[in-house]
Amino acid sequence: MNNDLWLFIGMALGLVSLAISLVINAWVKRQDGGSAKALKIAAAIKDGAWAYLRRLYTALIGVSAVLGIVLALVFSFGSEGPLRGLMTAGAFLVGAFCSALAGYLGMSVAVRANMRTATAAGRSLNAAFDVAYRAGSVLGLAMVGIAVFGMSLIYYLTHDPEIVLGFSFGASSLALLAKAGGGIYTKTADIAADLVGKVEAGIPEDDPRNPAVIADNVGDNVGDVAGMGADIFDSYVASAVAAMLIGTTGFISSGFTAADRAFYTVLPLILAIVGIVSSIIGIQLVRVGKNGKPGTALNLGTVFSCVIYSILASILFFAMGWNKGALIATISGLIVGVVVGFTTDYFTDDNFGPVRRTADMAKSGPALTIIQGLSYGFISIVPSIVGIVVATLVSYFSAQAFGLPGIYGVGIAAVGMLSLTGVVVANDAYGPIVDNAKGIAEMSGMGEEVVERADALDSAGNTAKAITKGFAISAAALTVLALFAAFTEQIEQYLPGGVSLVLSLQNPWVLSGIFLGAMIPPVFSALTMLAVTKNAFKMIEEIRRQFRDIPGILLGTADPDYATCVGLAAEGALKALVLPAFLAVILPLLVGFVLGPAALGGFLGGAIFIGVIFALFMSNAGGLWDNAKKYVEAGNCGGPGSDAHKAAVVGDTVGDPFKDTAGPSINTLITVMTLVSSLFAPIIAVYHLFG
Amino acid sequence: MNNDLWLFIGMALGLVSLAISLVINAWVKRQDGGSAKALKIAAAIKDGAWAYLRRLYTALIGVSAVLGIVLALVFSFGSEGPLRGLMTAGAFLVGAFCSALAGYLGMSVAVRANMRTATAAGRSLNAAFDVAYRAGSVLGLAMVGIAVFGMSLIYYLTHDPEIVLGFSFGASSLALLAKAGGGIYTKTADIAADLVGKVEAGIPEDDPRNPAVIADNVGDNVGDVAGMGADIFDSYVASAVAAMLIGTTGFISSGFTAADRAFYTVLPLILAIVGIVSSIIGIQLVRVGKNGKPGTALNLGTVFSCVIYSILASILFFAMGWNKGALIATISGLIVGVVVGFTTDYFTDDNFGPVRRTADMAKSGPALTIIQGLSYGFISIVPSIVGIVVATLVSYFSAQAFGLPGIYGVGIAAVGMLSLTGVVVANDAYGPIVDNAKGIAEMSGMGEEVVERADALDSAGNTAKAITKGFAISAAALTVLALFAAFTEQIEQYLPGGVSLVLSLQNPWVLSGIFLGAMIPPVFSALTMLAVTKNAFKMIEEIRRQFRDIPGILLGTADPDYATCVGLAAEGALKALVLPAFLAVILPLLVGFVLGPAALGGFLGGAIFIGVIFALFMSNAGGLWDNAKKYVEAGNCGGPGSDAHKAAVVGDTVGDPFKDTAGPSINTLITVMTLVSSLFAPIIAVYHLFG
Repeated sequence: MNNDLWLFIGMALGLVSLAISLVINAWVKRQDGGSAKALKIAAAIKDGAWAYLRRLYTALIGVSAVLGIVLALVFSFGSEGPLRGLMTAGAFLVGAFCSALAGYLGMSVAVRANMRTATAAGRSLNAAFDVAYRAGSVLGLAMVGIAVFGMSLIYYLTHDPEIVLGFSFGASSLALLAKAGGGIYTKTADIAADLVGKVEAGIPEDDPRNPAVIADNVGDNVGDVAGMGADIFDSYVASAVAAMLIGTTGFISSGFTAADRAFYTVLPLILAIVGIVSSIIGIQLVRVGKNGKPGTALNLGTVFSCVIYSILASILFFAMGWNKGALIATISGLIVGVVVGFTTDYFTDDNFGPVRRTADMAKSGPALTIIQGLSYGFISIVPSIVGIVVATLVSYFSAQAFGLPGIYGVGIAAVGMLSLTGVVVANDAYGPIVDNAKGIAEMSGMGEEVVERADALDSAGNTAKAITKGFAISAAALTVLALFAAFTEQIEQYLPGGVSLVLSLQNPWVLSGIFLGAMIPPVFSALTMLAVTKNAFKMIEEIRRQFRDIPGILLGTADPDYATCVGLAAEGALKALVLPAFLAVILPLLVGFVLGPAALGGFLGGAIFIGVIFALFMSNAGGLWDNAKKYVEAGNCGGPGSDAHKAAVVGDTVGDPFKDTAGPSINTLITVMTLVSSLFAPIIAVYHLFG
Repeated sequence: MNNDLWLFIGMALGLVSLAISLVINAWVKRQDGGSAKALKIAAAIKDGAWAYLRRLYTALIGVSAVLGIVLALVFSFGSEGPLRGLMTAGAFLVGAFCSALAGYLGMSVAVRANMRTATAAGRSLNAAFDVAYRAGSVLGLAMVGIAVFGMSLIYYLTHDPEIVLGFSFGASSLALLAKAGGGIYTKTADIAADLVGKVEAGIPEDDPRNPAVIADNVGDNVGDVAGMGADIFDSYVASAVAAMLIGTTGFISSGFTAADRAFYTVLPLILAIVGIVSSIIGIQLVRVGKNGKPGTALNLGTVFSCVIYSILASILFFAMGWNKGALIATISGLIVGVVVGFTTDYFTDDNFGPVRRTADMAKSGPALTIIQGLSYGFISIVPSIVGIVVATLVSYFSAQAFGLPGIYGVGIAAVGMLSLTGVVVANDAYGPIVDNAKGIAEMSGMGEEVVERADALDSAGNTAKAITKGFAISAAALTVLALFAAFTEQIEQYLPGGVSLVLSLQNPWVLSGIFLGAMIPPVFSALTMLAVTKNAFKMIEEIRRQFRDIPGILLGTADPDYATCVGLAAEGALKALVLPAFLAVILPLLVGFVLGPAALGGFLGGAIFIGVIFALFMSNAGGLWDNAKKYVEAGNCGGPGSDAHKAAVVGDTVGDPFKDTAGPSINTLITVMTLVSSLFAPIIAVYHLFG
């Protein structure tokens, strides 16, 4: 079958997926919006979310324009002249636009679905679940549709994976800003609202008297929907691009024909197509039975999609007579991803030891709660790391056994893991929607039963989120490994005199690079967390001021000034982005141009090793503290209001920026750094000071 | 000059250093012991400390015997027969014994010096400083004396650095147990005493009514004196052995003569001899002037010793006409070490932003205090990491520029950094002695002025400790890098068919090894910290029980049962050691024998990269919280008793196991793992399943 035909199928299926998501979106819109009070609250959340997104996107247009011009100029100096510069810059801008578009669509449905879910919860659990999950699937399907359409189109037009790299860099740059900015926003509001509201004023969570409550709900949308969406979009695109690059450069010197290279460059997109089909089917299968549990439904959806993907891919490979090494690699990646997701759940689920023992430790106060949670967070990296190692070795050697370059197998395994992105994102976006729905149900006084149903939906969302998160980080790890391999092959191609680049641990430049790269994830995490504490501190002052100056607020006779809190969070988040984003782009270039390609290779390696560990540990520790608090709130270890509860709240607050700000941004950070290095590899290979 | 002559000088100077330490020890003994009450308290501390050490050493004899027999058997199967096995086992046992001996001497002087320092503080600050510092120098001088004597002797007898490796492995194995065990012990007691005493019962620190107060003071001795002593002893020996190994294997194939190799193998010992001389002189120079500050005196001692070392080494190199590349390498290591130490101080000194801003954040409660401190802890790794990179590159390329193998320069830089061990250990041991003295002054009611003087000495100790800690971790990092290089050269020698071992990041085995190795420091930290929370939890229950069952305690009419708390801490610490120590020895062997030499190389690399970062971040964050608490206690941000103070105490408690249990054990952990790998390299090179 002709490769270009597959590209057409990719474009077509991308559009189909997008169309399905728009149909579902229309269905969500038709659902009952609920009472006037609920509508008013939902409108406030919506306005805040749009206000932030407008500011973020305005800033991004500026950044993208500058980066686009830089890329256009830099890549005009090669042998191919200004056309290449323009194409690279164009692909970059399209990538950034597509990522923004996916986030926009997700947000627009999320801020509509929250009140509709709450209203549907008035009828039944099932009805509410349907609204929330379908709304989540809008983001999932739109995202994979846009990504596959964009990549297929650009590759069809240029037949050059390095230009698709520009697309991926655009998507990742936007993702870094959206994720880190959204993460800072959401946790600023969440922490400030909790610390003053719950702890000082003693009013419940999501109480409309709290001036930060709207900012908190806005944060769920801008952080967990728009930010997370951009984040997974970026891994998804990067995994495909990495495999495509290896498909081109990795097959040069091993006796493959030009036709082989062309096919193996397109194969990652073909697997993405199989993934879209599996996701569309898998999403339809997610239903809560009569007495079913929402959590089980979400997880079954993930497992079903895996099975469908494996079957479809096998049929395709056998029917077309394709290399079975790639098939084994892609399925092994997928299986490891699922196993890792479910194993990591052990550390964050309150049915198991770690959460319960941490809750128990809360009886002795906040200090031991923190130490305990951190410790389990450190240990929780084991299943994922072992999974990454197994996936790497199996995919490498299965590809090699069938005559393919081993590293291509690793790239294909990452594509396999991420083939379920549609389903994973649907599950993930479901979470903030039901969280918001619960808030709206409480704030607009919908009654005990509705809040309880919303609560059941919410805890299912938390468990599903923990599983998909372990999955997503492992997939991102494998992706950056493939991207890293692509980078080294890339730079070797351009090294003068055909020298090969051996990134040996015995080389002092490589060692130095690793140490320097290893600093980046901790420092980046610190910068984003310091932004959260700084902004939360300001917002705490503002909430206290409002309680002091407007005494009617706590009595319920005066409305708080929601807008000031919303504005504070947005401004603080955007300001805080400048330094970390700048570092992510500049540092790899600095290391490359000054210390040379070997140091840059080490730098990326170091950032990846530590980055994966930090991302895992921070996400898992945060999830563990969150559930330990919920476990105490469910009446254990002294129950709500006890000293253990207060200590558990401290743990949860520490975990907040871990799991929703720093942890998830690290993935994107290392992706951006690897992409910028790959993009500039041809230039760095020739111009560098030392090394 | 004959190499053997240098070995004789090494043995002689080692004995001289030990003799000087014994003379100082006798001087300390002659000082006034103080009132009957002070003597009684000091006796309780001493008894507790000896009881713990007895149990620890008893356990160690068993472990050492087993490991010794294993080594004897394993190394009897080579071509050289049982003699080699017996020599390796013998060197291992001597190493373990020497390390234990150094710890024993340090403890014995520390538990005597504490009350004498307190009593001297009754006369003047200067007198008290003299007693404490000289007592600290007993450990410093004894340690370097024993180490240099032992290494010179073993090398003289065998002329085989691989046998000296056995000595180093013995010292490190003991250090790992002493450091981790002591760290768990001291923080169990410290946290439990603080949480129930200060927070719940509202009695001051070091109050004799607290049943855990003696255990707390015992902990300072077993953790900070015996444990820390064994820890630095192990780095010191390992740095010399690493350079000796490279001096042998690294010079094989580069056109050097057998005489060159013999000289460069002995050079590290010669530099250690220069270090001893500098330390002996430097220690004599440490004096507090009339209006002098103890902190300045301690730091000046460090700086003077550096200058003396540089001068002596330069004279020697020029006089003997030795290779100047090695001279530049050793001095550059030393300078970087000092710069790193002083820069890191910025993050833990309350005159600068990080500590003050964390204290400020405490006003909003414990959660933001924790996030803030963790964030600064992450950022605080930057100066050390940059320093390590600079030292690596400068020493590598300066050695290369003078025709030596680059990696030998790195080894020599590590030896340079650690040449000041005598002074560094003296400064470090000074800390717990004055801490104990302060406790005794308070408990035995010596009056306001004495306690204030003891307090001034104590804060000087804290600052000096922060500086020497940054220094020690950087030195350990460079040491393990050298050791790592020695390992790779080692294993290459034995690989069948003369294959060379390239630890390339593009090799899947190496990558997998790195990921697996990178898990170890976080998991190891977690296991030791979980041991602290578990034991502290038990001890908290015991203290509460005593307050409940013996009502006279808080009234001051009945004595608490100190012994039960001391016993609990000792038992818990020893039990908790089994798993982490087992993992440290078994895991590298498992990776080596199953996944092969390349994976093992990656494994060690991964453990080193993450290990250095974790050690730095944990030590610095802990020091920062400690000083933030002290800053609040000095009357800032609300002062003692305020909510900010309570939050700062939570930060300090979280930081306790960071800086005194997990952080410092990581150095030893990675040293042990690298040593065991080097030792078994000849066997792993031949027998492994994959790779």
